[in-house]
Amino acid sequence: MNADFKTWASNCQSHIETFLESHLPAANTTPERLHQAMRYSVLGGGKRVRPLLSFAAGELNQADTARVTTAAAAVELIHAYSLVHDDLPCMDDDVLRRGKPTCHIAYDEATALLTGDSLQSLAFQLLSEECLADDPSIQLKMIKQLAQASGSRGMAGGQAFDLDSVGKTLTLPDLEFMHIHKTGALIRSAVMLGAYCGGNLNDKQLEQLDHFAKCVGLAFQVVDDVLDAEATTATLGKTAGKDAENNKPTYVSILGVSQARELADTLRQDAFNALKDFDDKATRLRQVTDFIIQRKF
Amino acid sequence: MNADFKTWASNCQSHIETFLESHLPAANTTPERLHQAMRYSVLGGGKRVRPLLSFAAGELNQADTARVTTAAAAVELIHAYSLVHDDLPCMDDDVLRRGKPTCHIAYDEATALLTGDSLQSLAFQLLSEECLADDPSIQLKMIKQLAQASGSRGMAGGQAFDLDSVGKTLTLPDLEFMHIHKTGALIRSAVMLGAYCGGNLNDKQLEQLDHFAKCVGLAFQVVDDVLDAEATTATLGKTAGKDAENNKPTYVSILGVSQARELADTLRQDAFNALKDFDDKATRLRQVTDFIIQRKF
Repeated sequence: MNADFKTWASNCQSHIETFLESHLPAANTTPERLHQAMRYSVLGGGKRVRPLLSFAAGELNQADTARVTTAAAAVELIHAYSLVHDDLPCMDDDVLRRGKPTCHIAYDEATALLTGDSLQSLAFQLLSEECLADDPSIQLKMIKQLAQASGSRGMAGGQAFDLDSVGKTLTLPDLEFMHIHKTGALIRSAVMLGAYCGGNLNDKQLEQLDHFAKCVGLAFQVVDDVLDAEATTATLGKTAGKDAENNKPTYVSILGVSQARELADTLRQDAFNALKDFDDKATRLRQVTDFIIQRKF
Repeated sequence: MNADFKTWASNCQSHIETFLESHLPAANTTPERLHQAMRYSVLGGGKRVRPLLSFAAGELNQADTARVTTAAAAVELIHAYSLVHDDLPCMDDDVLRRGKPTCHIAYDEATALLTGDSLQSLAFQLLSEECLADDPSIQLKMIKQLAQASGSRGMAGGQAFDLDSVGKTLTLPDLEFMHIHKTGALIRSAVMLGAYCGGNLNDKQLEQLDHFAKCVGLAFQVVDDVLDAEATTATLGKTAGKDAENNKPTYVSILGVSQARELADTLRQDAFNALKDFDDKATRLRQVTDFIIQRKF
């Protein structure tokens, strides 16, 4: 990771942290336990991969930083809510997340349920209460994009497909279908919302960006599976080896580690090809892609 | 209930049912189990009180019926999601809703969790994908209003406050705080979103409508508590007497049945007073108010 990118990424992460810190309800606002749990689940953790993608796509399109920060925070809140719900006993039943007890362990199940629900509402509140695009109808498009990506034909649908697949033999296309929904949809939102905050892109450019985001979303998941298979719980900050233990189909269980790594490289190349018309404007997006693919945790 | 109102209400209910039927993903769309559970939890049940309020507020403001239907459906989806999550074992742990097994009983807990999550996303998708106001910035205002009303400083916050209050002695103001959030916020959204679909109201008129909605929201809850204390499970379509059994503070436990009924009447009068400047235009809103207060289940 070059020094320039490191500084840029760290600035983006601190923009997001400051924004979330001040836009999450204060811990002493009634109902206090819920607000504490919301802050616990969102602040001070995570790699903020989706926000980095939003900022990089925003830079490509000369977007105002304050607007991108808001849009990125909304996407991150949807991601955070999905983790809180995903960790619940009726889902993955996990006790460790980002090196800390999961929300329902630190608080309780009912609070974790309402925390996830409230984080989702807050995401849409953020996208609707500040001006994020010169044309408010573009802002409506952003909301629609995030809502679709979050729902039953997006992230939540991917999770449902995942649940149905435990113990089943999945084909590679099945696995791809699952991840395009479960992780990919929100990563595409991160990219597209960041870009929408800037000037108008034509349909061809929007398609190129969307194809880039689709490749990065899949690559992200392939790398995730490799890391889950190889890492230890300590480096991962969440329970390692859960997928194998739960008999969940993954890129590693279907392809093996070495072919999975090759697939990640191919997807990286596809992602870069999709950006070629943007030339230097897409430098940050390429750097974030490499950050995602070369990460160790 | 007069015949004219009965016909009007039945028309509104059928508009909503048809709209929801066609805007919920089909039961054979992957992931099928999730989509079946979403349809199971939303269609063919409920009094559709919130949609009736949206339609009546829309009429007051000469709003287009198709627009109001979309807005009303969004509010109803938020309501439906809250019921699915509220019935989960970690919350009220209820097995019966609208005379049928609750979602997690008919399906399973994980599916019920994702069903609620997806219904919330769908609500915001509906509010952003069709034109609901001539000025798109009004539509952004509608989304903000529903997001705030749903989140931790609205409905979900009220539920958290409710959880915290089990077994505690609440004062009347505490109880009011809880219900203004838990039920009231969404009822206010129903009224305001319906009105926003029509022409511009001035600030004073918006305030009057909001005050009306606040009174109706509280009255709704007072009547709910009376019905829960008096009705049988068969007429209620959900488990009766749960509040007392769970040692939950209610208007009946604090005031007794007869004073609770008086409070409902006072709130009805306050609600009507708030509408007096609207004259005949508010006839439907008055009728819906009486429908809410005089209901038997």
